Amino acid sequence: MKHFINDRATVVTEGLDALIKLGEGKLARLAGAPAIKVVVRTDADPTKVAVVSGGGAGHEPAHAGFVGEGMLTAAVCGEIFASPSVDAVLAGILAVTGPAGCLLIVKNYTGDRLNFGLAAERARALGLAVEMVVVDDDVAIAGALRPRGLAGTLLVHKVAGHLAHAGASLATVKAGAERVARGVRSLGLSFDTGTLPGQPTEVRLGPDEVELGLGIHGEPGAQKIAYQPVDALAATMITRLESTLADAAAPVALLINDLGGTPPIEMAVATGAILRATTRAVALVFGPERLMTSLDMKGLSISILPLDPALTEALLSDVAPRAWPRGRRPIDVPPVPRPAGLTAATHTSSVHAPRRRIVAAACMALVELEARLNALDAKIGDGDTGTTFAGAARVLLAELDTLPLREPAALCTAIADRLATMMGGSSGILLSIGLSATGTALTGGASWPAALAEGVRRVQRYGGANAGDRTLLDALIPAVHALESGGSLADAAAAASAGAERTATMQVARAGRSSYVPEDALRGVPDPGAVAIAAIFAAAQQA
Amino acid sequence: MKHFINDRATVVTEGLDALIKLGEGKLARLAGAPAIKVVVRTDADPTKVAVVSGGGAGHEPAHAGFVGEGMLTAAVCGEIFASPSVDAVLAGILAVTGPAGCLLIVKNYTGDRLNFGLAAERARALGLAVEMVVVDDDVAIAGALRPRGLAGTLLVHKVAGHLAHAGASLATVKAGAERVARGVRSLGLSFDTGTLPGQPTEVRLGPDEVELGLGIHGEPGAQKIAYQPVDALAATMITRLESTLADAAAPVALLINDLGGTPPIEMAVATGAILRATTRAVALVFGPERLMTSLDMKGLSISILPLDPALTEALLSDVAPRAWPRGRRPIDVPPVPRPAGLTAATHTSSVHAPRRRIVAAACMALVELEARLNALDAKIGDGDTGTTFAGAARVLLAELDTLPLREPAALCTAIADRLATMMGGSSGILLSIGLSATGTALTGGASWPAALAEGVRRVQRYGGANAGDRTLLDALIPAVHALESGGSLADAAAAASAGAERTATMQVARAGRSSYVPEDALRGVPDPGAVAIAAIFAAAQQA
Repeated sequence: MKHFINDRATVVTEGLDALIKLGEGKLARLAGAPAIKVVVRTDADPTKVAVVSGGGAGHEPAHAGFVGEGMLTAAVCGEIFASPSVDAVLAGILAVTGPAGCLLIVKNYTGDRLNFGLAAERARALGLAVEMVVVDDDVAIAGALRPRGLAGTLLVHKVAGHLAHAGASLATVKAGAERVARGVRSLGLSFDTGTLPGQPTEVRLGPDEVELGLGIHGEPGAQKIAYQPVDALAATMITRLESTLADAAAPVALLINDLGGTPPIEMAVATGAILRATTRAVALVFGPERLMTSLDMKGLSISILPLDPALTEALLSDVAPRAWPRGRRPIDVPPVPRPAGLTAATHTSSVHAPRRRIVAAACMALVELEARLNALDAKIGDGDTGTTFAGAARVLLAELDTLPLREPAALCTAIADRLATMMGGSSGILLSIGLSATGTALTGGASWPAALAEGVRRVQRYGGANAGDRTLLDALIPAVHALESGGSLADAAAAASAGAERTATMQVARAGRSSYVPEDALRGVPDPGAVAIAAIFAAAQQA
Repeated sequence: MKHFINDRATVVTEGLDALIKLGEGKLARLAGAPAIKVVVRTDADPTKVAVVSGGGAGHEPAHAGFVGEGMLTAAVCGEIFASPSVDAVLAGILAVTGPAGCLLIVKNYTGDRLNFGLAAERARALGLAVEMVVVDDDVAIAGALRPRGLAGTLLVHKVAGHLAHAGASLATVKAGAERVARGVRSLGLSFDTGTLPGQPTEVRLGPDEVELGLGIHGEPGAQKIAYQPVDALAATMITRLESTLADAAAPVALLINDLGGTPPIEMAVATGAILRATTRAVALVFGPERLMTSLDMKGLSISILPLDPALTEALLSDVAPRAWPRGRRPIDVPPVPRPAGLTAATHTSSVHAPRRRIVAAACMALVELEARLNALDAKIGDGDTGTTFAGAARVLLAELDTLPLREPAALCTAIADRLATMMGGSSGILLSIGLSATGTALTGGASWPAALAEGVRRVQRYGGANAGDRTLLDALIPAVHALESGGSLADAAAAASAGAERTATMQVARAGRSSYVPEDALRGVPDPGAVAIAAIFAAAQQA
């Protein structure tokens, strides 16, 4: 596996240093790396209770990403998936704890419990008021004696941080944290494990298996279940989670956590499934985001917490850390009606014999050219130019008498609309753009030559091609230029024809269908789009 | 590949619906799905210029995640990696465009350019003022005629959104957007491709290759280069990017974009590398975050934009969308000195003959028991309990006369400190916790039995084990209980011995070393930790 790292040994400190560098001066690291990896607030109020958490790295943004006003006062980080040492935790406690004391929030893993625990005892021996709350929100194993701590821990951080920020006493902050810790339940589900720098990735799941009830350190889940649509997976998870709630009726908060490697679009789809599966009233949703990850594990976890007004207030207050998502109440929003003007204007057919002859002649010329254009395109592209143009021409021929032939602008717009919907390919859209712009210019009072020139400019702009790029523009530009210079339709047809012939000598195709074709293959072959345009002008002047 | 989806055909609409459901009522979808997938603001000011962007899905949070006050008025979404249709774009334009007009911001891909372009022409034909800015920030291919649009597009959104929100005219909003589009340069680098629902994943890179200069649709990069430490990769990217800047001196903004599958800790490490590699003054950093992803591609892109005061102001203003990260100026923050109190208090040695005899006897007993405890542990654990206890005992014996033997509290703390640092394993930390808490209790005026009981409670709490769980607590708890009940040291020793023997009959180990051992293997084997505790009490009462 490849990783964006310099050295396996410095991953955690380098990551923390970048976090601090972008922390606007409100974060700092304690001296003593690599043994001591502690991120502290520089703007903490020393009269308030300090809230300290931490644990192994690899769970970013947890825990250092949640240091800031309203959440953690310090985060003590270990190496990837390894508890920090007693000394590191003690350093964190000592750095931020004043007379109001310190609450430690610890996920229920033996290493964390022991290292944070001993540090707490040492800090107490030094005369500090230190309390500890252990979070064991995992419901993966029914009746587990010591469930693990998962992403629900973040809700404990939020409530403790809120109370501490509000100036509450250590006892009150601890009581609030314990309420959340006792109430919150979490469950993870994953499609694979994360990739640990320097270690081979373990493949323990078959193509039709997923793991339910896993921790955040790559350890196996409690059970393997069948891979299913996310609605079914979400229902399985929510049923399990709701069955563990002591409270039977209160509305809940959901924290929807990307374990690291799930694309945002899939997290959004999963969020919809989770909200559909939940039978409780959902008052607040945190996420879907990466909050407590397991490196780049493709999976997610759901945490659920019954609410009351005090908890809701504590969960909703603003905090400084960017990583914390504001809780949002799900709302059903009805779709906005489709705007008027979307359906192509229905044109009233009208009569204009000369213009009808021109359109008919141009279309018939394209029908006749079908095989030749396809043959040309087969040498330099995918061989369908003739069919594309002839198909559109046949439709127009069939609908000829429904067109507003007497109104030039409306005629352009009507043909543009038909080309966009049934011609297909870039050519269809580009010709539609050109004719649409021509129609708009005619409406604005432009002459035919000026309006056509405006259409050509739009084709160039949206298509990104210029004269000499071996596209239909090499016939179109000289033809329209001839008209603009006061030339006749015959002059335009001659210019288009000459332009189309010149494309056979252009060796480099810089845009369009031939831009991926070797130069040798192009020699002597005119661009079929340019030939089609020349045919249209030739037919028009003869009509 | 497994995906959190229900149906490949509904991924995009389901994802958008979840976004809207959590959009606090400020987002809505236009009717007409699945053909029309347009997210619009419901709180837009109709007198201001509308800013509309979009493109294929699979780039989340782009584009719908950036709809909101101060950024986009609407996002028009296609299927994954496919441009939206002309009708969808036109629907978006019509839904949000008032008299002030509409700016379309389009990434330079043929499909987007044509579909947005034709929609713009149609909207103009309907009388709306519509302008379009095409972003082509990719520098992957030197001298490319039509560079792709990448994550730099988001800076265009931000500036256009700021100007529109400030009430600027369409011409001014367009001019601001064009300034950013002309100035910004981007480059991507990836370790693999993303995984597209319903399609096999392409493996086109060797284990030592990475791709430089890739787009956001899984298409191959411009070149393969060697996998290197991230400092080297960042230097390659930044050198290329800086060489393309027209402006030679202005400070720059960097947008550091996770292409979807890079763990946050690696993005942080990469950010440090990018900041070190940049020779320009970096005034603002956006990210590192997922901003313009390519599903779960493991890679990143860097965008760089020379700044002036007006651009800086436009980039820094607050916006509603959660997905947009505030720009931050990098700051070097010196480490905070390590707090005092971290190094274990140096105790002044003092003399107390009876207490010296007790400590010495207990230590010698543990040294003598080394082989027996190892043998017991070999049956139920990893066979090192004897060595763990005896090693600690030997150190204490050697340091006996440096201990503060006359001061009970200090003696407990001193031994606790030594056990934590050199005994190792959970036992060492747990005994250290117990003795540390005992010392704190003695300092607080507790009697020896009460202080020991407090120590035992702390061991239980942090270790998570109770009486009957087949751990050293099964000797320790009865011994301390005997002392608390007024018993003698001999009573305590007898209780510890009986407790240790009882562990041989406990079939289920619920905590500690034996909890992973089959019940059969435990029968008749006392817990070696409990035996060690019994030996300590026996030695103490004989000393």
